[in-house]
Amino acid sequence: MKLASLKHGRDGRLIVVSRDLDRAAPAEDAAPTLQAALDDWDSVAPTLEAIYAALNDGSCTTAFPLDMSALAAPLPRAYQYLDGACYICHIRRNREARGDTLPDDIMDAPLIYQGISHGYGAWNDPIVQDPADFIDFEAEIAAITGDVPRGVSADAAGQYIRLFCLLQDTSLRRIVAPELKRSFGFLTAKPESFLGPVVVTPDELGDLWDGKMVSGTMKVTLRGERVGCIEAGIDSPFHYGDAIAHVAQTRNFPAGTVLGLGTVSNEAADDDPSIGAGCIGEYRAMETIKTGKAELAFMQPGDRVRIELFDRAGQSVMGAIDQEVVWPA
Amino acid sequence: MKLASLKHGRDGRLIVVSRDLDRAAPAEDAAPTLQAALDDWDSVAPTLEAIYAALNDGSCTTAFPLDMSALAAPLPRAYQYLDGACYICHIRRNREARGDTLPDDIMDAPLIYQGISHGYGAWNDPIVQDPADFIDFEAEIAAITGDVPRGVSADAAGQYIRLFCLLQDTSLRRIVAPELKRSFGFLTAKPESFLGPVVVTPDELGDLWDGKMVSGTMKVTLRGERVGCIEAGIDSPFHYGDAIAHVAQTRNFPAGTVLGLGTVSNEAADDDPSIGAGCIGEYRAMETIKTGKAELAFMQPGDRVRIELFDRAGQSVMGAIDQEVVWPA
Repeated sequence: MKLASLKHGRDGRLIVVSRDLDRAAPAEDAAPTLQAALDDWDSVAPTLEAIYAALNDGSCTTAFPLDMSALAAPLPRAYQYLDGACYICHIRRNREARGDTLPDDIMDAPLIYQGISHGYGAWNDPIVQDPADFIDFEAEIAAITGDVPRGVSADAAGQYIRLFCLLQDTSLRRIVAPELKRSFGFLTAKPESFLGPVVVTPDELGDLWDGKMVSGTMKVTLRGERVGCIEAGIDSPFHYGDAIAHVAQTRNFPAGTVLGLGTVSNEAADDDPSIGAGCIGEYRAMETIKTGKAELAFMQPGDRVRIELFDRAGQSVMGAIDQEVVWPA
Repeated sequence: MKLASLKHGRDGRLIVVSRDLDRAAPAEDAAPTLQAALDDWDSVAPTLEAIYAALNDGSCTTAFPLDMSALAAPLPRAYQYLDGACYICHIRRNREARGDTLPDDIMDAPLIYQGISHGYGAWNDPIVQDPADFIDFEAEIAAITGDVPRGVSADAAGQYIRLFCLLQDTSLRRIVAPELKRSFGFLTAKPESFLGPVVVTPDELGDLWDGKMVSGTMKVTLRGERVGCIEAGIDSPFHYGDAIAHVAQTRNFPAGTVLGLGTVSNEAADDDPSIGAGCIGEYRAMETIKTGKAELAFMQPGDRVRIELFDRAGQSVMGAIDQEVVWPA
């Protein structure tokens, strides 16, 4: 099924969305918010599924036309955001461009940081940042989990994924390197992230979800030009279950954890320029490696980025993220 | 005033606690949880203050004896946890013991990481960790903020602090160094933290709170022996406002952010062994620097740690954290 949240208060108001994103129906009788649904998933989900079925077969009496501009992030506030850098070529290129190599232990465990979960923006919210900080986007697919028990195995961890959605992890490239040098991870270099308009259950993905990775083609358009056309289901040695299990080694974690595998990236982009990258930084790194000079400009006020995942039939899987950069007030 | 949360569901049930921690009264009519109170502080706080006044003058008709063992963490789930390493001598000693120096930019900005906010344990919960990971505690004082606007100045930031409480930031020392080497910050090396039994408003601290730092003597007892007797209000070049303003440079942040300044630590401990340290790691670093050999053992199952802040009259300011290590299941 597909779910979303209408803009309302701090946590939005849960709705069920039809498969074609054309109509929606209230879900408040089942759970007022997506967090409330996740907190009590086993008892709430069947009601939501029934609404979804009725929406799709036309029998839902409470259906209304979906106004995409009325949507908040599906989960406007979350208790945890974990973001990985699991598509290794993303890291390899970024480091190679500055004359660096991959860390020795890169294949030992997924590289993941504790991110900012407290305020996800909507799919079409402006990116309000100063261009002097070198504004970049990152195209990702995030899992949203139920309660995950400590010590879960990588094989078993996938079953705790309740939902998937698009994620745009805004990054301020000027700040990234000096901040990481301090060894305490990202803080001001990764301000608020943005979620796609809807969340979808794993079963909704059909064979795009194999229990480990989400497949499909992530198309990324910057300033009206295609800069990325990336296969999401390959080129990460660590899958969602690996990432969850790594973090859960020393703690359980709660329903509503948002976990991204990192900027999608393909090894073949080294040889095939039509593949491109899921962020400007990596695109510039590839330019630097090839020509010695980065050309693709970071985002300026007025620039737009669009991120969308397509299935094998060319259908959009979970809506799009489409944002414009604006100056801070 | 003083507030706490009874164990109840995922977010506890808000209560008001008398100054002497002897009695309490329900606060549910004002706000069901502490997060709900923080989300709507300006309208909720006056009602809570009225209950607090009535509790202290004996006129509260709904008062009941406070059972400390019925308390959850005051804020069992939070949307953000920021933890600093602002008491510089804590970092200096740890690095000096391994032959390292302070980073060049240590005084340029507070060193802060994005921590795990999703599940704070109660003041007396067991520390459930494997001693092979070198279990350590960290004694801290945390601020809990209201909504903080992006770009707030360090001078203005203090006014957004709503509450203070004790914080114990469990650290697994075996994992810390290799994890930080990966540059993405703490992840599995800093599992769940624990909050003191009550939160107190800044005015409750009287002249222990000068708008920048919380003063008082932090006494730390490990395995029944005093290992720390540290003045909390000195030896940090960055105060709470500095820490908030640093993080808020690129984003606003939400009501209920928990912000610790880091393990309390005093410069004078180099010369005065009675001062000690607020964690085992730093205590061992001082031993190493002085004698070449660390003697104080990390925590083993059955070991207890007690952390408590005292005012100038020797009165406990905000209750105590008192925990025992137990084996993971």
